Amino acid sequence: MRVVSGMRPTGKLHLGHFIGVLKNWKELQEKYDCFFFVADWHALTTKFDEKIDLRQNSVELVKEWIASGIDPEKTTLFIQSEIKEHAELYLIFNMITPVSWLERNPTYKDAMQQEEYKKKNNAGFLTYPVLQTADIVLYDADLVPIGEDQKPHLELARDIVNRFHYLYKTEIFKEPQEMLTEVPRLPGLDGRKMSKSFNNAIYLDETPEEIWAKVRMAKTDPARIKKTDPGHPEVCIVFEYHKAFSSPDEVAEIESACRAGTIGCVECKKRCATNIEKVVAPIREKKAQLKNDEILDIINNSNKKARELAKEKMNQVNRVIF
Amino acid sequence: MRVVSGMRPTGKLHLGHFIGVLKNWKELQEKYDCFFFVADWHALTTKFDEKIDLRQNSVELVKEWIASGIDPEKTTLFIQSEIKEHAELYLIFNMITPVSWLERNPTYKDAMQQEEYKKKNNAGFLTYPVLQTADIVLYDADLVPIGEDQKPHLELARDIVNRFHYLYKTEIFKEPQEMLTEVPRLPGLDGRKMSKSFNNAIYLDETPEEIWAKVRMAKTDPARIKKTDPGHPEVCIVFEYHKAFSSPDEVAEIESACRAGTIGCVECKKRCATNIEKVVAPIREKKAQLKNDEILDIINNSNKKARELAKEKMNQVNRVIF
Repeated sequence: MRVVSGMRPTGKLHLGHFIGVLKNWKELQEKYDCFFFVADWHALTTKFDEKIDLRQNSVELVKEWIASGIDPEKTTLFIQSEIKEHAELYLIFNMITPVSWLERNPTYKDAMQQEEYKKKNNAGFLTYPVLQTADIVLYDADLVPIGEDQKPHLELARDIVNRFHYLYKTEIFKEPQEMLTEVPRLPGLDGRKMSKSFNNAIYLDETPEEIWAKVRMAKTDPARIKKTDPGHPEVCIVFEYHKAFSSPDEVAEIESACRAGTIGCVECKKRCATNIEKVVAPIREKKAQLKNDEILDIINNSNKKARELAKEKMNQVNRVIF
Repeated sequence: MRVVSGMRPTGKLHLGHFIGVLKNWKELQEKYDCFFFVADWHALTTKFDEKIDLRQNSVELVKEWIASGIDPEKTTLFIQSEIKEHAELYLIFNMITPVSWLERNPTYKDAMQQEEYKKKNNAGFLTYPVLQTADIVLYDADLVPIGEDQKPHLELARDIVNRFHYLYKTEIFKEPQEMLTEVPRLPGLDGRKMSKSFNNAIYLDETPEEIWAKVRMAKTDPARIKKTDPGHPEVCIVFEYHKAFSSPDEVAEIESACRAGTIGCVECKKRCATNIEKVVAPIREKKAQLKNDEILDIINNSNKKARELAKEKMNQVNRVIF
């Protein structure tokens, strides 16, 4: 069974990516033939007007994947824009995809309610589920790990595949199925969405000092002034991080000590930072060891493998269309 | 100066194509570095649901171009879908092209008023001016021969180029200029638009007998019953054909004889068919001599040349974007 999933190269990875995506990818690679790709063309759908070095970011991203435990021996780690067949199939799928399907896409509708995205209502933004469909079906993906909010995209992908099959009386694509994954959302240390611009995220290559400096400033229960005040872990961001990075035993212990007012926020944060460091340390160290050339070799080999499959699929497509 | 122009491979060429496009191309090839391409991907924007053998049609089209006097030594005759860079640049241009620009395209707006096209309102139909832009600027076209109705497309092409230059602080594309060409519109023999389904067109490979059979049935002045009735050439389809295929002297002679009622419709039609045959005969004969292998060789060489230029341009684009 093949799994295809991608990530946009829009910046350094942080703990949110690790908890939300990479932990899952690490499990998937043990069970499936995984194709993980750097969605650099997708990055342009919203970041077309930002100065980001997508090429450098892409290499960095793959490096961080590998440092986080994605195994290039087990998986295929390629760069979307290096496989031109994604653009070719995107073009062909556009020819058969009604504009109305795309306008009805809930993600698109939501975005059109937001000033920020309204300004970015480009053809590429409207049609990005078509590009996603190409990304997936080029490789005969059986399963696509997604969160609940992305279900409409996968439904659209199946609709496009079915329309293609119907119009051209063929069955050349696999209908991709969703693998619904609970995506744990780790909030930023200030309680807002993790974002570089809020400086509220811990990156996968940060030092213990940097980690501590950030955790120290994390938002806790505002009702708790003195150590002896009973705390409310359910409103404390640090507790969210304990749940993600501390052992169940320690989480239980912290929770009751907090509620009882027997552990101070500073101590609690220190233990949290220590547990985060336990996760980050091996990633940071492995990342420091990995050489760019090594990563480029891995990418080139993977690109080659992906390109062969994509070319074969496009040959099938073109035999049907032309 | 480079000229780029394309034609969709949707079927055999008829006199309308010869008068409307090929005569102009023949003149252009003497003065410019011409790139004429088979727009097979474009054919899918409206013909995605028809069974047409686009591959075979494309070879046939190039054969008919050459038979009509397009010189493969002077021009580059390539197939759009063989140059994947068109799809790649189309994808990238989509990322920066506002949906509103495309919705405001007059051709699109007109089409959306017609039931036939409303049903075909696919993403590829909405975005085809973006693909056209890629087609043109990939080759640094200076001039694009167009009719008045296509002016908005070329304006859109320049807008896309300018937006790209503005966003990425670069100047890598040439802004294509229109070469407004009066496109003589030859009506079908029944006065309707020339169309295969109306059986009212004369094809470039028809025999004198086939030509006569069609011209014989052409629509003339309905007020003229007997030869001696004064005719009205301005409402006669055959006269339209005389203007396109007979010498100015003969046109003048026919016109006054018709108005005076001294020439019968049958004689007039015979002379018309003879003059059409004079144009068709060399095309038909040259087409019969041209071998498919020969055409494929020409196409392959041209594709190679086009591909090199397109690749070079895409390298520039990708250096800017990534």
